[in-house]
Amino acid sequence: MGNKIREYRKAENLSQAKLAEMLGGNSDGSYISRLELGKLSCSTDQLYRISRALDVSLKDLVDFE
Amino acid sequence: MGNKIREYRKAENLSQAKLAEMLGGNSDGSYISRLELGKLSCSTDQLYRISRALDVSLKDLVDFE
Repeated sequence: MGNKIREYRKAENLSQAKLAEMLGGNSDGSYISRLELGKLSCSTDQLYRISRALDVSLKDLVDFE
Repeated sequence: MGNKIREYRKAENLSQAKLAEMLGGNSDGSYISRLELGKLSCSTDQLYRISRALDVSLKDLVDFE
């Protein structure tokens, strides 16, 4: 899933810090980095916010099986 | 998403308590009930475990957009 977040983030030319900023709350670039590396899991609510920020569907982000 | 969990759980003829038991850890039937009602969010790792227990893909569980 982390790879999908990275793939779509790069497609949108967003930095990790910028994506974190778009999510609001207190996440930062290192949070996004750990998510992308699979070192961190997030809630399905947060995954939904990420999908909105990247303008993709939730299905796109979990489409790795 | 909760509706999808309920839909597939019923298709497998599993009770909420039985699905909770299959997930291991300390979740119980009321945890599944709150997830299904959207009163609770879970981690993407937990959603993956639910998809394995229900024998569906993650995409199936987030296919509500």
